Amino acid sequence: MICHKHKVQYYETDKMGITHHSNYIRWMEEGRTAFFESIGYPYDEFEKLGMFSPVIGINCEYRDTTTYCDEVEIDVSIISYNGVRMKMAYVMKNTKTNKTVLLATSDHCFIKKEGGIARINRAYPILHEKMLSLIESNDDNK
Amino acid sequence: MICHKHKVQYYETDKMGITHHSNYIRWMEEGRTAFFESIGYPYDEFEKLGMFSPVIGINCEYRDTTTYCDEVEIDVSIISYNGVRMKMAYVMKNTKTNKTVLLATSDHCFIKKEGGIARINRAYPILHEKMLSLIESNDDNK
Amino acid sequence: MICHKHKVQYYETDKMGITHHSNYIRWMEEGRTAFFESIGYPYDEFEKLGMFSPVIGINCEYRDTTTYCDEVEIDVSIISYNGVRMKMAYVMKNTKTNKTVLLATSDHCFIKKEGGIARINRAYPILHEKMLSLIESNDDNK
Amino acid sequence: MICHKHKVQYYETDKMGITHHSNYIRWMEEGRTAFFESIGYPYDEFEKLGMFSPVIGINCEYRDTTTYCDEVEIDVSIISYNGVRMKMAYVMKNTKTNKTVLLATSDHCFIKKEGGIARINRAYPILHEKMLSLIESNDDNK
Repeated sequence: MICHKHKVQYYETDKMGITHHSNYIRWMEEGRTAFFESIGYPYDEFEKLGMFSPVIGINCEYRDTTTYCDEVEIDVSIISYNGVRMKMAYVMKNTKTNKTVLLATSDHCFIKKEGGIARINRAYPILHEKMLSLIESNDDNK
Repeated sequence: MICHKHKVQYYETDKMGITHHSNYIRWMEEGRTAFFESIGYPYDEFEKLGMFSPVIGINCEYRDTTTYCDEVEIDVSIISYNGVRMKMAYVMKNTKTNKTVLLATSDHCFIKKEGGIARINRAYPILHEKMLSLIESNDDNK
Repeated sequence: MICHKHKVQYYETDKMGITHHSNYIRWMEEGRTAFFESIGYPYDEFEKLGMFSPVIGINCEYRDTTTYCDEVEIDVSIISYNGVRMKMAYVMKNTKTNKTVLLATSDHCFIKKEGGIARINRAYPILHEKMLSLIESNDDNK
Repeated sequence: MICHKHKVQYYETDKMGITHHSNYIRWMEEGRTAFFESIGYPYDEFEKLGMFSPVIGINCEYRDTTTYCDEVEIDVSIISYNGVRMKMAYVMKNTKTNKTVLLATSDHCFIKKEGGIARINRAYPILHEKMLSLIESNDDNK
């Protein structure tokens, strides 16, 4: 599990005076970028190998609001991975209050730039083993 | 159920060449705006009454990609409502291909501007009855 | 000159209660999309020919605010074009109040997907002639 | 002058494969937040005093593109201020290449939450003196 921090920007708030809910989806992606960088497989390098890992599912439970100038800590982990599919989990906390603001998961597949499923286990066995070794139980997330 | 159309803009695409997945969350909100307008209760009027209906949960299943200049038809319906909570369902289709691109739900509560839960059944009985009458089975959504 | 309409969405507002100023830049792009579609040269087709027209300059004068549910009319015109550079002008009005909300211009060049300047006059003489014929004085814009 | 860093996110790119130009407008705001924090007058505190400082003009010259995972250094300075109006300047550089990617300015006024112009010189003489002392020549910016 890695932990990434995001400071809420003015342009991320809405007329309710709080962070617009769509931004958490973007911060999940920020967390993924930080996660893959931290394990030595930056996502931009991954794409340069001719692969993409699109989001095929999102599940978010909003627990508390945040607003301009709040700092959000984003914990990211892989909770399942089998070479063709991956599920990641996110726990976001307001670092000032230590309150959980979001619990979420995202589902991903792997595709080749030219089309078709990318089988990480065959094409990138070292990355595959790395990912398998990083799977965490999500008992802590709920 | 109402149907709202959104044309995908260039600023909504990402470097994969497709619509960034976070935008569908925004289009769900566009759909809600159109929905409440169509039933005679525009959401901006609702807020002027001193209430908010924040999103407390989001569930998205991405079925197909869209890109710049595609037109997306967004079908919106209420699938549950009990005076304090509401669940809405969304089916998005690419109008060119008629393919389903997204199946989603959003969960909402109702709060008062000054804080605390807004009980629509007591405070706005006419809106409450209207909402109850609009509940649809979501059998068609899956 | 063409006229495109945009309804302000909740996700476009900020905690000041008004449309966040960065969104007008996006609506200018929406206006360009509508403009090139209206003259028979949709921008997505232009990109399929292997060209891009990136924004190299932006100038905005914010005259009035807008907010959720306002409708903005975006008038778009070409005010200069010479085969390698183009300047477009935008006048945005709130359709309810008829007040001008934004006066803006954007500067563009043309590049080839594989790199290098795209000379529209040589590569696409018909489009070139069309663009020349559309140049409008921007006397009305200020 | 202060210097703020922003790492380009995937959701900030577009189908051209580069950062969408509208995001630089948002990073200018990020730079302002960092600027006012660094001088001891965080903008969120400013708003709590019942004032807003809306953007009334934007001028951007895009010099180079950036993309996912690039780091952008944002230098922010006040180049004019007279108690009722303020102009800020921005120089953004790609920290990898040290190339200038954007030169920009933004114009601001000061308004009171309840409406009407906020005269910083009268209402907040200490902040007013601070701002006057921070004015920099923008000779370096062009």
